[in-house]
Amino acid sequence: MVILMEKNTPEVNVERVIEYLDKAGYDVHRSTGVEHILLGVIGDTARLDIRTMQLMDGVADAYRITAPYKLVSREFKSDDTIFKIGDVTFGGDETVVMAGPCSIESEDQIMRIAEKVARAGARVLRGGAFKPRTSPYSFQGMGEEGLKYMRAAADKFGLLMITEVMDKDQIELVEEYTDIIQVGARNMQNFTFIRALGKARKPVFLKRGISATYKEWLMAAEYILSGGNRNVIFCERGIRTFESYTRNTMDIGAIPVIQKLSHLPVFADPSHGIGLRDKVLPMARAAVAAGAHGLMIEVHDDPDHAFSDGAQSLYPEQFEELMSQIRVIAEVIGRKVAEPVAV
Amino acid sequence: MVILMEKNTPEVNVERVIEYLDKAGYDVHRSTGVEHILLGVIGDTARLDIRTMQLMDGVADAYRITAPYKLVSREFKSDDTIFKIGDVTFGGDETVVMAGPCSIESEDQIMRIAEKVARAGARVLRGGAFKPRTSPYSFQGMGEEGLKYMRAAADKFGLLMITEVMDKDQIELVEEYTDIIQVGARNMQNFTFIRALGKARKPVFLKRGISATYKEWLMAAEYILSGGNRNVIFCERGIRTFESYTRNTMDIGAIPVIQKLSHLPVFADPSHGIGLRDKVLPMARAAVAAGAHGLMIEVHDDPDHAFSDGAQSLYPEQFEELMSQIRVIAEVIGRKVAEPVAV
Amino acid sequence: MVILMEKNTPEVNVERVIEYLDKAGYDVHRSTGVEHILLGVIGDTARLDIRTMQLMDGVADAYRITAPYKLVSREFKSDDTIFKIGDVTFGGDETVVMAGPCSIESEDQIMRIAEKVARAGARVLRGGAFKPRTSPYSFQGMGEEGLKYMRAAADKFGLLMITEVMDKDQIELVEEYTDIIQVGARNMQNFTFIRALGKARKPVFLKRGISATYKEWLMAAEYILSGGNRNVIFCERGIRTFESYTRNTMDIGAIPVIQKLSHLPVFADPSHGIGLRDKVLPMARAAVAAGAHGLMIEVHDDPDHAFSDGAQSLYPEQFEELMSQIRVIAEVIGRKVAEPVAV
Amino acid sequence: MVILMEKNTPEVNVERVIEYLDKAGYDVHRSTGVEHILLGVIGDTARLDIRTMQLMDGVADAYRITAPYKLVSREFKSDDTIFKIGDVTFGGDETVVMAGPCSIESEDQIMRIAEKVARAGARVLRGGAFKPRTSPYSFQGMGEEGLKYMRAAADKFGLLMITEVMDKDQIELVEEYTDIIQVGARNMQNFTFIRALGKARKPVFLKRGISATYKEWLMAAEYILSGGNRNVIFCERGIRTFESYTRNTMDIGAIPVIQKLSHLPVFADPSHGIGLRDKVLPMARAAVAAGAHGLMIEVHDDPDHAFSDGAQSLYPEQFEELMSQIRVIAEVIGRKVAEPVAV
Repeated sequence: MVILMEKNTPEVNVERVIEYLDKAGYDVHRSTGVEHILLGVIGDTARLDIRTMQLMDGVADAYRITAPYKLVSREFKSDDTIFKIGDVTFGGDETVVMAGPCSIESEDQIMRIAEKVARAGARVLRGGAFKPRTSPYSFQGMGEEGLKYMRAAADKFGLLMITEVMDKDQIELVEEYTDIIQVGARNMQNFTFIRALGKARKPVFLKRGISATYKEWLMAAEYILSGGNRNVIFCERGIRTFESYTRNTMDIGAIPVIQKLSHLPVFADPSHGIGLRDKVLPMARAAVAAGAHGLMIEVHDDPDHAFSDGAQSLYPEQFEELMSQIRVIAEVIGRKVAEPVAV
Repeated sequence: MVILMEKNTPEVNVERVIEYLDKAGYDVHRSTGVEHILLGVIGDTARLDIRTMQLMDGVADAYRITAPYKLVSREFKSDDTIFKIGDVTFGGDETVVMAGPCSIESEDQIMRIAEKVARAGARVLRGGAFKPRTSPYSFQGMGEEGLKYMRAAADKFGLLMITEVMDKDQIELVEEYTDIIQVGARNMQNFTFIRALGKARKPVFLKRGISATYKEWLMAAEYILSGGNRNVIFCERGIRTFESYTRNTMDIGAIPVIQKLSHLPVFADPSHGIGLRDKVLPMARAAVAAGAHGLMIEVHDDPDHAFSDGAQSLYPEQFEELMSQIRVIAEVIGRKVAEPVAV
Repeated sequence: MVILMEKNTPEVNVERVIEYLDKAGYDVHRSTGVEHILLGVIGDTARLDIRTMQLMDGVADAYRITAPYKLVSREFKSDDTIFKIGDVTFGGDETVVMAGPCSIESEDQIMRIAEKVARAGARVLRGGAFKPRTSPYSFQGMGEEGLKYMRAAADKFGLLMITEVMDKDQIELVEEYTDIIQVGARNMQNFTFIRALGKARKPVFLKRGISATYKEWLMAAEYILSGGNRNVIFCERGIRTFESYTRNTMDIGAIPVIQKLSHLPVFADPSHGIGLRDKVLPMARAAVAAGAHGLMIEVHDDPDHAFSDGAQSLYPEQFEELMSQIRVIAEVIGRKVAEPVAV
Repeated sequence: MVILMEKNTPEVNVERVIEYLDKAGYDVHRSTGVEHILLGVIGDTARLDIRTMQLMDGVADAYRITAPYKLVSREFKSDDTIFKIGDVTFGGDETVVMAGPCSIESEDQIMRIAEKVARAGARVLRGGAFKPRTSPYSFQGMGEEGLKYMRAAADKFGLLMITEVMDKDQIELVEEYTDIIQVGARNMQNFTFIRALGKARKPVFLKRGISATYKEWLMAAEYILSGGNRNVIFCERGIRTFESYTRNTMDIGAIPVIQKLSHLPVFADPSHGIGLRDKVLPMARAAVAAGAHGLMIEVHDDPDHAFSDGAQSLYPEQFEELMSQIRVIAEVIGRKVAEPVAV
């Protein structure tokens, strides 16, 4: 932290600030300029409340000069974090596509959709068994029964599986089924929960909170890494702005920014990001063009009767079109998207 | 829900929409105007995804005409919800002040501060034993030990007690000590948790999420009321906007708006709302002038050495000044603030 | 500006930054700490693009340590700017109320309303002759004819007059009639216009842009002061946030913040700030309680038939009630509101 | 407009609303449902203040069912607006790239940069002669002299020219030199100015205001079209959100949304959208992938010494790389980018 003293402030104020910092266990480096005195604070300033310093007599302003996150930063680890689950590589030169319905609705439904997305080149099956809903009166998910159907569907079609966990008590149960644990936007700062994920055995897919700053998002990942779980994937899924025509405003710029600040993979979820089926394709192309390491896409073969989020789910044919478009775009930046397969 | 069909759309599109709604169990009331056909949808449309309707062929737009919340609304209960805990009335003509430190730091600290705020006229002691922190490296609270000290302090000085619960697993423990359960802004949409609070035995103090719309905030309370717990207090504590000079932007307008939409009491927390000690007094006065049923104020007798949020905590003398100012302001709108007492 | 070099960056990078700044005419003060090298840049750094510095090799970050505004700041002038127009004092211990219709609609209308607001204690008559409208098809104002009626009404009832100017070409004309020039939110960063206001002969009432930061708002006033016109009044009128239930979100916190950063008076406009008549009273009380030097209030004696903004205009009786309430509140912080008068 | 009456409201309230609308010249279509009475209002409701209706006794809510803009909408003109200037087609299957420095700094500078961008395939030369600056102390542009140099440079290298006009008084002068008139974000709602552009002889490039909703942006274009100038190009250039790490948050989703609502071309400006050179390439690729009809890119051959916005200007080599990348991406959606040329 750097503390700027007011012009011509009496020496006693400078001394009082230094004494305060000294007692709190910091080294202080004093630098006297023509107009201003600057104090450099050395030590673990993450625990120092910047506002406390700003309110002290004679202090003009204070600035953090080191980021509060460590393990997630490029400063800590400069090369990209790349990891494999089965034969799928995350964070490397493969653009990985996760696809499936918003909610698991029945054994038959998840089987049918898994087959379709696998054929088109998806590598991971998505689907929700526990649903966070703004209304207590909405469909809340199939629970463990859904997880079983989904695991079977993923295995049958050679896919990995990702599903959302809503609470620390569910982690153990869901880990028995899933390959990747999804954390929803509303839980990004549920600290009890994300702390527990530091002890989880599976990689964590961390969606950005709807109004989370880049720093807060990185700090949420820091909770998980500091607990020992080093495999975190960020996922941009739209933020809340003044514009309410679309469900959210997808912050495509977050992709290159987070990739610069952190070594962890960055995905994008255009289905939630834009919230309307007919605009999912352009936004998915944009995310891949901006350098996303992967996509999460909602696909449903009967979206008009989906239990949730049908309006933002692609038809299987649209998903195939999307896959063929992003194959070309990914190559522009040296990435590859899996080819369609006969399953 | 009202559905507006496009001008001159073929009759088959109108019929398809009606058929879809009919199968989903809704009655439809068709109204043919000069230019447009309107369809009124009758039934529990809270479960109907408005975007699905908007995407159907021939539909120009769709509008919800009933609010998705029920129990919290003035339509359900037109008169104010007023309830007592001990001799303190919430939601009535008393402007109730809750005050105390951000964190409980020691038995001695909470005793000293409880005495000071009680003398000045506070009716409820606030203080955190479990702290939600953006950094995994920050102070995380004293836990149950802190609750014991706080209960003792509240009892000694004739105060009620409010403290934050961070997780559904803590509810039972904390209920043994506290009079009111505080839900933090980051947990407002932790649905597993707020659903569990519907079964809690104590009133819930529901802080507004940092980017929660009025509707989402009301829906969060709906979760609690629909579970059987009818005593919820809303608390405006600042929202996130483009302006980052202050910690948050306090939305004083939320006070009269929520009071119009709901029958439940509305409080304000200017300490978090503005985040800087020297501006807490003007914001607290503003909240009372706007009609808040009460305030939550952070007070510390040594804020420079507080374990958390010292920069926004008032000195006890400032708190006394605040209390004497709001006594005058509350009277302007027919409310009363408790007098200072000899404790 | 302070520039922080990356840990262990080669000396050549440090030298290149110093050389760049030297050529640009700045003095550089180098300070070598345990981990980091800091460079203090001395001179008029307002012209230095902080992003250019941040992009140079070896630079970890850069921070402005002096505000880009000067004449408007407390550092330039520490005591409050107080000025009189006629017998009305702005920026002092009088809470000045400006009131009147959104638009001047006829001679009779402005006369009737002027009488009503003058009786209740308003000191300044507001009303628009040139209207900025989002739709090209809406009523655009009466023009100079309206100004004549308004001047006559103000004079007859002993009021000052304030009206909006939309363009630099209108300044000369409007100055012949008005006492104070109002600049609308959408024009706050119309630089050609605000530069011209630096040469205007009348004080300027500068509304905050709908998404203007505090810094941008202060910089807009700096344009006017740097042109020679030292009498600027800030007016908070609501900002744009994610919440769209109300027209705007009124940022009451701006009042104490701007009063701390600047010596100029700060007013509030709750009519635009909240946009709904039934919530104008609570917001007006809140603004006075927070320390506003004055209010601007829309009043209409037949709001249902107003040509513009009827929905946010008070009935004359509501305005009287407002005045009597804020008389009590203003006293709490040592201010006075004019008494009702027989006119 | 559709007006929803409250459940069980007395008939007198319904009649009063109908009478009010009847006097204001609207036809009303009454529809009585099981629970609610709905009133459909027929006529030009753009002039009807929705809030006035919402405040009438017995009214539960009111909804606009027709957009307030007309000429810009797909309803008015369903096929894309495509127009040519010289041999460049806007709004068709060419992805048009505009490039050049932020400010014209000298004859030599604009010549050098024009040559470089022309070689790489740009079709339009951008550059500012009049600069809108937040600080009155910053460089304000070369004025007419700059326009002359720029016209010469554009002609020499076979480029069209675009430059910003800041004020209605400059239109005539600038039209003598430029092919396209650029309107800056801060002027998007300068109504006097945009009304005057309706009479301009050149196409208008309308940047989105930093906090403008889609509707406000479309309405601003409506001002221009309603004045007779039918050639307007929208340009997304980033909006203001809570995240301040980047200069703005680029709303890539605006591209497909505006293209659906309007028949006019939509461009994107990633230089302002993200504000940092190293992220301009990913954002430019994203905009093209999302379907933008063109790009505006800042290029400078010595950005460290640019008079303005050097930090977001590409080096010529980076611009060449960008052009070769978007050639591939544009083809994915059936568009073409001009080939590099020997100039």
